[in-house]
Amino acid sequence: MAIIDIRIELKKGVADPEGANTKKTLEALGFEGIEDLKSVKVYEVTLDMTAEEARQAGEEMCRKLLVNPVIQRYSVTVR
Amino acid sequence: MAIIDIRIELKKGVADPEGANTKKTLEALGFEGIEDLKSVKVYEVTLDMTAEEARQAGEEMCRKLLVNPVIQRYSVTVR
Repeated sequence: MAIIDIRIELKKGVADPEGANTKKTLEALGFEGIEDLKSVKVYEVTLDMTAEEARQAGEEMCRKLLVNPVIQRYSVTVR
Repeated sequence: MAIIDIRIELKKGVADPEGANTKKTLEALGFEGIEDLKSVKVYEVTLDMTAEEARQAGEEMCRKLLVNPVIQRYSVTVR
């Protein structure tokens, strides 16, 4: 059994309104020193296979369903 | 300068329709061996401070804004 994290981020230059608004709100609450804030989506998947098989399955899930390669990039890590 | 990951997950027992539907769709596409799939929210925050200060600021952001402690739990890690 293996647990993988599929981490999906917006590519550089793609607008991230959720991140921008979260940053603005934190600043309005008094938080200082925030240089950047990105919103990221993670799917934590538990798979009944070896770690290496799980990593490969995760990559395939990204290509077939989870990721829009025009605006998103992804990484798959075994936890 | 420090980069932190604020990882926000649903607590055990809280319904995760996004995760459930993603799992169902992956299975419909032929993926086998998926035992569990959780949707997780991550904020990647770049802060102009030391790693330890950034970790503490991240915890405070969770308590003050980002996390609903009734249904969510969080962890802050320095990247």
